[in-house]
Amino acid sequence: MSNPQVIGVDFGGTSVKLAVVEGKNLLSEVSRIPTQEFRGPDALIEAIVAEVQGIRETHPDVKAIGIGVPGAVDFPTGMTYNLTNVDGWTNIPLCDRIREKTGLPTVLDNDANCMAFAEWKYGAGKGYHNVVCVTLGTGVGGGLILNDQIYRGTAFAAGEIGQMSIDFSGVQGPYGNSGALERYIGNRQIEEMATKMYQAKGVPVPEDHSPEALADLARGVDEVAKEAWERVATYLASCLMSTVYLLNPDAIVIGGGVAYAGEVLFDPLMTRLKESLTVECYDHLAIVPARFGNTAGILGCSAMASDLLKDSPGS
Amino acid sequence: MSNPQVIGVDFGGTSVKLAVVEGKNLLSEVSRIPTQEFRGPDALIEAIVAEVQGIRETHPDVKAIGIGVPGAVDFPTGMTYNLTNVDGWTNIPLCDRIREKTGLPTVLDNDANCMAFAEWKYGAGKGYHNVVCVTLGTGVGGGLILNDQIYRGTAFAAGEIGQMSIDFSGVQGPYGNSGALERYIGNRQIEEMATKMYQAKGVPVPEDHSPEALADLARGVDEVAKEAWERVATYLASCLMSTVYLLNPDAIVIGGGVAYAGEVLFDPLMTRLKESLTVECYDHLAIVPARFGNTAGILGCSAMASDLLKDSPGS
Repeated sequence: MSNPQVIGVDFGGTSVKLAVVEGKNLLSEVSRIPTQEFRGPDALIEAIVAEVQGIRETHPDVKAIGIGVPGAVDFPTGMTYNLTNVDGWTNIPLCDRIREKTGLPTVLDNDANCMAFAEWKYGAGKGYHNVVCVTLGTGVGGGLILNDQIYRGTAFAAGEIGQMSIDFSGVQGPYGNSGALERYIGNRQIEEMATKMYQAKGVPVPEDHSPEALADLARGVDEVAKEAWERVATYLASCLMSTVYLLNPDAIVIGGGVAYAGEVLFDPLMTRLKESLTVECYDHLAIVPARFGNTAGILGCSAMASDLLKDSPGS
Repeated sequence: MSNPQVIGVDFGGTSVKLAVVEGKNLLSEVSRIPTQEFRGPDALIEAIVAEVQGIRETHPDVKAIGIGVPGAVDFPTGMTYNLTNVDGWTNIPLCDRIREKTGLPTVLDNDANCMAFAEWKYGAGKGYHNVVCVTLGTGVGGGLILNDQIYRGTAFAAGEIGQMSIDFSGVQGPYGNSGALERYIGNRQIEEMATKMYQAKGVPVPEDHSPEALADLARGVDEVAKEAWERVATYLASCLMSTVYLLNPDAIVIGGGVAYAGEVLFDPLMTRLKESLTVECYDHLAIVPARFGNTAGILGCSAMASDLLKDSPGS
């Protein structure tokens, strides 16, 4: 059975990206609506609907819409609960609005779940049954596939790996959560940590000490950059170790900008995990870089939209 | 539909306990076989079978057997992987042996899963859908119910809450896992911590400073004992907070000897969790003491045996 054509809508703080998707293939250019140019949800929803209708003129076979948003959602009703970096989006029935205005079956989930679903269905997590997906960027996000299904949790808030603690008396996270992982290995935190490490060694701080630059330096002869990545690996390993003891997954998929560091992160990470897990858990665990980059969101919500058609009796 | 009569076998390091169970009711006295008096699995399996056959003479309607063991199992094959505090039980096909010798459908799982299943089906976790069960004793164990099913993980090793880290640079656990929770709040660790706290304050250490005794003292005017329990709550809260951010459960059930401390543990625990969780997660979360004590294991494996009959076509 071939996959239906659907429209994937990846709602981000900077832009809302739309594309026609069939399985894991994009059938159209990705079009972008600049999120911040619209005041409030009504105007932006109108713009999304207009874009969708435009796309349907060139792709009349589109059968459903999937939307991924950067924040908490009420999954069954398709309401946004609140969105990170986008104001005014509390309790907006986004899914209903798009469905009503387009007449197409529509599904809404948060972007971390979309990413996890895409990686499990088509990407690095394919063939595994219990997959923990982590995205490392400005913050740290996550999504879970358990027993071959997205696990969303009671209030659809599961997978918040960045808020898990690696130190009961550590740096406070945004919710009073001491030791929150993302306060150690978010983009900015890595830069700050590296800066301090260079200064402590009396070594001049490289002008560009972004995670990408630090990864390049660590692949060379820069011992401080190497050490910085080893520390990132130690923090991340601690949290993933806890996750493995709790969930005993068969795969951990790691994506997001920080994951582009590659082996300077993955090598020490694997070493730490091997040192701290039972043989049983480690031997059943694959630790793999994400396959999809920026398109993971669009592919994931599209796959959910596609499943929507499978599940409905009329399809 | 009424529940069938089954035999529950709770395999412990000290004794193997057996009883006839119907639903959540014990229909017979619990009989005990002293585990350590038998050398190796063969002799002990013979003794268990003999006890089962004896029980069937007085309870001829028994239809299945459920067994809970203290350690890792290979769930589909019913093999013991290894048992805590019982030597010589590596890779023993316990489930098959009992099934063959008794002719009854038999199921085997680890005791933490049995406890979680009993609490979810009949006890403190009843009516919830995503339940994290924790047992606090010599070690710290756990079992998970996710989407109304036991979640066992890839190698049937999920739920090892005691091995999760609360400090990336903390005390090492048995597998090289720094900050392992059970190295902070196991029975013995609580006693040692309290001893040091009394000494640091120049207060004589109470002769009985077991967790039970410390709980009694904390309910009185003993400020050190109170502080000791607050510290236990801080450690436990850190791990449970991480668990909630990852799984967003609707209930955490806390059992085991240490949990008998009651409000001297639960009050500060709730406070810490409220301080460190999102409103969304905390509002959907019940934190409840386990309902069943020593019978949780027998009830849980019996409930699994009972379900075995439901699932099989001939029942």
